[in-house]
Amino acid sequence: MSKKKWLLAIWGILIIFMFGAFISGCNSQPAATFGYIETGFGPNEHDMEKYALLFPHHYDSFMKNAEMDDYHSKYGGSIHDDHLEKYPYMRTLFAGMPFSLEYNEDRGHVYSMTDLVEIKRVTSLPGGRQQMGSCLTCKTVEAFDLQVEMGLDYYSTPLNELIPDIKHGFSCSVCHDPQSMKLRVAQQPFIDAMARIGEDVTKATQQELRTYVCAQCHVEYYFNPARQGEVTFPWDKGFTPGDMEQYYNEIAGPLYGFNQDWIHPMTGTPLLKAQHPEFEMYQGSIHQINGISCADCHMPYVKQGNQKISSHWMTSPLKHMEQSCTVCHRQNVEELRDYVYSKQDKTFEMLKKAGSYNEQAINTIAKAIELGASDEALKEARDLHRQAQWRWDYVAAENSMGFHNNPLALSTLSESIELAHQATMAAARAGNFHDIPELKPYGDYVYERLEQSGWSRDKGRSYAPSHMTWH
Amino acid sequence: MSKKKWLLAIWGILIIFMFGAFISGCNSQPAATFGYIETGFGPNEHDMEKYALLFPHHYDSFMKNAEMDDYHSKYGGSIHDDHLEKYPYMRTLFAGMPFSLEYNEDRGHVYSMTDLVEIKRVTSLPGGRQQMGSCLTCKTVEAFDLQVEMGLDYYSTPLNELIPDIKHGFSCSVCHDPQSMKLRVAQQPFIDAMARIGEDVTKATQQELRTYVCAQCHVEYYFNPARQGEVTFPWDKGFTPGDMEQYYNEIAGPLYGFNQDWIHPMTGTPLLKAQHPEFEMYQGSIHQINGISCADCHMPYVKQGNQKISSHWMTSPLKHMEQSCTVCHRQNVEELRDYVYSKQDKTFEMLKKAGSYNEQAINTIAKAIELGASDEALKEARDLHRQAQWRWDYVAAENSMGFHNNPLALSTLSESIELAHQATMAAARAGNFHDIPELKPYGDYVYERLEQSGWSRDKGRSYAPSHMTWH
Repeated sequence: MSKKKWLLAIWGILIIFMFGAFISGCNSQPAATFGYIETGFGPNEHDMEKYALLFPHHYDSFMKNAEMDDYHSKYGGSIHDDHLEKYPYMRTLFAGMPFSLEYNEDRGHVYSMTDLVEIKRVTSLPGGRQQMGSCLTCKTVEAFDLQVEMGLDYYSTPLNELIPDIKHGFSCSVCHDPQSMKLRVAQQPFIDAMARIGEDVTKATQQELRTYVCAQCHVEYYFNPARQGEVTFPWDKGFTPGDMEQYYNEIAGPLYGFNQDWIHPMTGTPLLKAQHPEFEMYQGSIHQINGISCADCHMPYVKQGNQKISSHWMTSPLKHMEQSCTVCHRQNVEELRDYVYSKQDKTFEMLKKAGSYNEQAINTIAKAIELGASDEALKEARDLHRQAQWRWDYVAAENSMGFHNNPLALSTLSESIELAHQATMAAARAGNFHDIPELKPYGDYVYERLEQSGWSRDKGRSYAPSHMTWH
Repeated sequence: MSKKKWLLAIWGILIIFMFGAFISGCNSQPAATFGYIETGFGPNEHDMEKYALLFPHHYDSFMKNAEMDDYHSKYGGSIHDDHLEKYPYMRTLFAGMPFSLEYNEDRGHVYSMTDLVEIKRVTSLPGGRQQMGSCLTCKTVEAFDLQVEMGLDYYSTPLNELIPDIKHGFSCSVCHDPQSMKLRVAQQPFIDAMARIGEDVTKATQQELRTYVCAQCHVEYYFNPARQGEVTFPWDKGFTPGDMEQYYNEIAGPLYGFNQDWIHPMTGTPLLKAQHPEFEMYQGSIHQINGISCADCHMPYVKQGNQKISSHWMTSPLKHMEQSCTVCHRQNVEELRDYVYSKQDKTFEMLKKAGSYNEQAINTIAKAIELGASDEALKEARDLHRQAQWRWDYVAAENSMGFHNNPLALSTLSESIELAHQATMAAARAGNFHDIPELKPYGDYVYERLEQSGWSRDKGRSYAPSHMTWH
């Protein structure tokens, strides 16, 4: 080949390469998304106003978490919704523990500290009891610093002593390294729990981190009394309801001295309260085994001016299905929504049933006690009640109405119904009676409440008003 | 443009077109698949040997249905498997009706007539009773002709009178028009049932027909005593267990005089026997709403020499996942198989439980009768037993161990467990006793049987031996 031809060929390659670079530049993520920038911040910078100056689009989308419109997806949503009013059996199930005082639907991330300091579970505990610092762990980013500064003393310090010094609630730095903006996890209980099952989270991929940053908080946990109330994730045996129950049953000892959240005052059952096991429920689901991260659906890429950013409005994907679902699923949004609802409707129906059956078990055990059944005679009924209510709560407390893993949600509720039934039968045997307390079906009551607030039994109310469409 | 340039352009277009035609020719379906050929056969030609001469590849693949290796997917498979031995509670559930005599796993399509004439349900009915012609409806293609020739008399003629004249079992002509080989449905009960819900099957698309030809038989049905035992599909209210139950409950009358298959001898409950509601279970499932037909998974396209044909080995897609699943799903086969099994395992566990709970309900009602409970006192228990057993059977009789529609299968089984429990409680109230008959857990027994036959609890035995790999 002549020299001239060589030059021509090199020019050609260069032009193609530059054109490719130009094209990919049009669609590239802003550098901040993958975090190879220097913010100039210190390693513990939590002030969101400062981040807002560098990442105004991300900040804008995050502040949508403050919006509290009364529209939402059919189940759940970002409103201050009273579970105890909607599901009266919960007052029976949670009798004797703080959740029977006030139990609301979760609101957006910006309310984490507000909701904590206002809720009766914290402000109005009976007998003047005080909550511990442990409660702050997922409410303020400053918990990361307190864990390092105070060690285990952080968890055992009374909450009300810590609160006056807290300046920030949720912040960018919960998920991002303040200096480089790279995704990272800094929640010690999460890091420890993953290490115990052999996962070194410092070696996580970007895609894994897009789930792990959420799993710092969206999980089941307990306050380990053997370690000053340290927040602990019970994953040593696995993530299913049965796995975590086995953990709680087996590891009562000096290191993990915990196997109950409270003793139910009507039944004497040592019970577990489920928190929000979103990460756990998700394991083994169809989306999880396909490698989909939390952020893929809850923080989809959106156009903001000429920039493409990962939305920081962490809300139900049903509010922006075009961004979240139809990237992979080619159906129209209405069909997809109907399918999601068909799964959630089944879960909702079974959840109500399981709640009613657990309430019946409680009332039956209470009756057996009234009739003089001994602790020994009641052991079987209490064991079964503990298993039944834990399974109901695993699904009830989880925030997806069964969508995150429908086979697991449905089979878990079925187990709950069955175990509650067995508890009822065992209690009747223990008390030697057979006029078992009534099973109250709350189905229609709940639907009436939903419909009064403008929902439709078939479709829910899932369409954002026009001023709320994505911008 | 000059004349020469025009000619050049036309030549160019022609060459591109011809190249395209050549390429698509390499990959095209043989004309027979879409049926635009003339076979020269009469309209009622059922002799498969004749079809074999025209379509040797299709015939070869169909004859794989005759193979009865003892390998199969984890649940089900084409073997002569004895349900009653594996699931002893079935003897209780089906007491007093032919399924308690012999109830085998379905074998391949080639055995339809053999299995019919040999099974004790037909040959050894108590009291010398005889089965009716209705039973032939899905066992021989000649039923299509008999429906036309004999009208309703076909259904009421004793089976043993009809059998000597039957020459063919399953044939190409069940799904294909013998003259053009186009897909068509000819099963009158299917055509009628679809018409009653507003579907004109003569207007069906090719893709719909790829499901409808299967739905001619893979459905729930009953023999309508008000119409000489005419085979009837109970779809007027819909396809769910609740819809079909409502149909059976409501339409007892001159036209549809049917609301029970038999009265259970231990309980006096008028019960429904579910047949194989594959088409019904499939409705509303994720694959169905995505427009996937039965044939897409069960009769995938395969290469046979240089021809691409639709496989006519109608078997579990788990036996040829590369052809059936990975066309759409990009995971590796092992991951997909594990996910399928995770759904089926949950279904299997719940199915066994529901079976045991139904058996307990039966034993409890029987005990109440023994203790002198009146029919009036037992009404509630029997109503609940009827609902419970129908739901168990809808899933048990359906051939996919919950895969075809996992949310429906799991929630249906949960309903069954719950209703059976309610039946048990109601019977104990009716008989005024509280030592309720034992609930027998058959779980380990069933697993032991499975493992004796070489299955693995985790993986099943799903790998074809080398001589059976796809050719």
